[in-house]
Amino acid sequence: MTTQTILPLTTIAQQTQQAARQLAQLSETDKNALIESVAQSLEAATDEIITANQQDLTTALANNLAKPLYGRLKLDSVKLKAAIQGVRSVAMLPDPTGQVTLHRQLDTGLVLKRIGVPLGVLGIIFESRPDAVMQISALALKSGNGVILKGGREAIHSCTALVKAIRQGITEAGCDPNVVQLLTTREETNALLALDKYVDLIIPRGSNAFVQYVQNNTRIPVLGHADGICHLYIDEAADIEQSTRIAVDSKANYPSACNAIETLLVHQDIAEKALPAIAQALQAESVALRGDEKSQQILSNTPHLNMLNIEAATEEDWATEYSDLILAIRVVDSLAAAIDHISEYGSRHTEAIATTNPSAAETFLSQVDAANVYHNCSTRFADGFRYGFGAEVGISTQKMPPRGPVGLEGLVTYKYQLIGDGHIVSTYSGENAKPFTHSDLPL
Amino acid sequence: MTTQTILPLTTIAQQTQQAARQLAQLSETDKNALIESVAQSLEAATDEIITANQQDLTTALANNLAKPLYGRLKLDSVKLKAAIQGVRSVAMLPDPTGQVTLHRQLDTGLVLKRIGVPLGVLGIIFESRPDAVMQISALALKSGNGVILKGGREAIHSCTALVKAIRQGITEAGCDPNVVQLLTTREETNALLALDKYVDLIIPRGSNAFVQYVQNNTRIPVLGHADGICHLYIDEAADIEQSTRIAVDSKANYPSACNAIETLLVHQDIAEKALPAIAQALQAESVALRGDEKSQQILSNTPHLNMLNIEAATEEDWATEYSDLILAIRVVDSLAAAIDHISEYGSRHTEAIATTNPSAAETFLSQVDAANVYHNCSTRFADGFRYGFGAEVGISTQKMPPRGPVGLEGLVTYKYQLIGDGHIVSTYSGENAKPFTHSDLPL
Repeated sequence: MTTQTILPLTTIAQQTQQAARQLAQLSETDKNALIESVAQSLEAATDEIITANQQDLTTALANNLAKPLYGRLKLDSVKLKAAIQGVRSVAMLPDPTGQVTLHRQLDTGLVLKRIGVPLGVLGIIFESRPDAVMQISALALKSGNGVILKGGREAIHSCTALVKAIRQGITEAGCDPNVVQLLTTREETNALLALDKYVDLIIPRGSNAFVQYVQNNTRIPVLGHADGICHLYIDEAADIEQSTRIAVDSKANYPSACNAIETLLVHQDIAEKALPAIAQALQAESVALRGDEKSQQILSNTPHLNMLNIEAATEEDWATEYSDLILAIRVVDSLAAAIDHISEYGSRHTEAIATTNPSAAETFLSQVDAANVYHNCSTRFADGFRYGFGAEVGISTQKMPPRGPVGLEGLVTYKYQLIGDGHIVSTYSGENAKPFTHSDLPL
Repeated sequence: MTTQTILPLTTIAQQTQQAARQLAQLSETDKNALIESVAQSLEAATDEIITANQQDLTTALANNLAKPLYGRLKLDSVKLKAAIQGVRSVAMLPDPTGQVTLHRQLDTGLVLKRIGVPLGVLGIIFESRPDAVMQISALALKSGNGVILKGGREAIHSCTALVKAIRQGITEAGCDPNVVQLLTTREETNALLALDKYVDLIIPRGSNAFVQYVQNNTRIPVLGHADGICHLYIDEAADIEQSTRIAVDSKANYPSACNAIETLLVHQDIAEKALPAIAQALQAESVALRGDEKSQQILSNTPHLNMLNIEAATEEDWATEYSDLILAIRVVDSLAAAIDHISEYGSRHTEAIATTNPSAAETFLSQVDAANVYHNCSTRFADGFRYGFGAEVGISTQKMPPRGPVGLEGLVTYKYQLIGDGHIVSTYSGENAKPFTHSDLPL
């Protein structure tokens, strides 16, 4: 890392921090007008953006970019129109700042308030999807935060054209365009991670390995999750037809999603009945199965199954996020054993139980430590849009809040504001200390 | 670090995690009964605890321990009684777990709840004050968390006796005593910081350098703050008599506190009137002053001041937490310059403005980025007890919540609980996707 790289980035970050401080002062109406101006500017720049995207696509073809990445990189007029609509819909979300969550008189004339405020500056590092630029910028503006974007190299022309249009829209609304900035080189990623004086939250969007790299290489808080090893546990009292449906949806609906299951746990007393039905349904969806000894025994007696497609599961399987149409199966001898397995191998993301026994469900929901704990439904519901947040900035598997699917409110913090009239602490300490009143006032 | 040290600690942490999982299932009534049992056990062990403390005091005398440390180490029957009363008062605090903060129907029969739950296991590293053991254990039990305590070597006998009595009280209440554990060696501190699989929050209590060391050497979230560089800004429209009172309280009430001010900023248009009065009042409280050029000029014309006691302030002073009866003074030419100075040198802890101008106050309160922003009152109010939290587990200067003085609610997190009846995501996607209802239910 040379100083040539670091110095301008520090300047960029300072500019963003300064611009964000002004943005934070805007009313909700002004912020919404700002977002509308950005949407219009993006519309006006449609041709320029699509031309830039075609440049990236040409390079991608020449470099033989993998097909799914190529698909994500592509930004045609339909996708762009939808993304601009997405920008406008962010303006409709409730403002996550300004809420007073504590209002208390400490003594006559001495009043405390806890008020929601923007975090400051967000650092977002994402892969090749250029539409992410628009969504993230809109979310940052709505929450009053500055944002430093670092896009993938493959999308450099697209991102540059998009950010140019976004900054133009911000300028036209009379605000400082430095509130949105774009970095384009890999060296800048590392430099960004070191800017804990200017950047308040890092949101990495990419592979597990990348997220882990970010988590291990910055002192800035990171919103995200490295692994998504989720489980569905079929209890002895499960409804087999319902469990089958949930298992298929949890695995096959979108196997590369972080909230898809990787391991199915089945209670031994229902395994002989449930496993054949579930295994058949999963094979019908092309899911390759890996079973422990007991489940292999049971399934080897099941007609119509393709046993060639059921490998033995090893210790390594319990700890693997396949992100693919592969599912490990383990027979457990009790609910407690299922919870222990999840505690050992789960990544605290989303864990589900299928059972008709309310007491088993209650034990599972309360004892399993995960951001999302489910009863009789698919793990795939773990998502900010499905939860009704209107937007999702990430899913966090850390223990401290914000945890689970995080909407706009994950981009804000609060501060305590105390207003007095010459009040000093020595009045309330020592002999003849005046007592505090500590009476809550209306919010 | 040898494996001999690490292996048993992993086992200890696993035991604590296991015990905490059981504790988390207890009702508030049961947790309160548990805390009462601990209080009674401590009372019964009074003689043993005081004898152990005398052993530590003897060693401390032999080792010539600094007087303030000796004072904090000492645990006589009066201090012990008060601490046990403190344990009982924790039982009276509201249970920070179990609150439902979101309750939403996603669709018929598919209901989402966000529920407050304990963090899991806390790691608390504190200096020689043995009474901290009692307060922290009570707070952990009330919030449903396990706790691994690491006390200072000077207090080893006291802490061992206290934890023995606490564990006895937990056992007598029918719970697993492993929910409270004590570590005693320095090697274990480093091993504890590496246990991110078992420990969910580290709370370091000690010097700034120590807190910074902890922050730099763990992936576990840390609740605390390294520096406390707080400012009082005397605006051009300040009431001088009131400002003087606030300045004296903010500096001299308890200079080693993190919420005491280190630098006084004074608007140039009031400096000639305000500075002499404030400087005299501070010198009367034995505060040594360090002034920039302008303030030295002004003060050199002030009668009754001891100018020998007013050194020149350098760049280094603006970045120094004296934690002592020393105050730096800088004359600034505008409110914006004051805010810039705070932005550059403040540690985002507590920042105050003295002014009779509501618009200046509003600008300061909204633009200054700090956990606590004050108008016309002493910075020394930044404290969990003064805010009416009943307890304080620490003051956080991080941006992400919990921020500022943190009470019991800083020891909990939440999880999302979703209960369905066979609901799957494919119902709500693709063609003919069923819409979500997203209707909020009563909390």
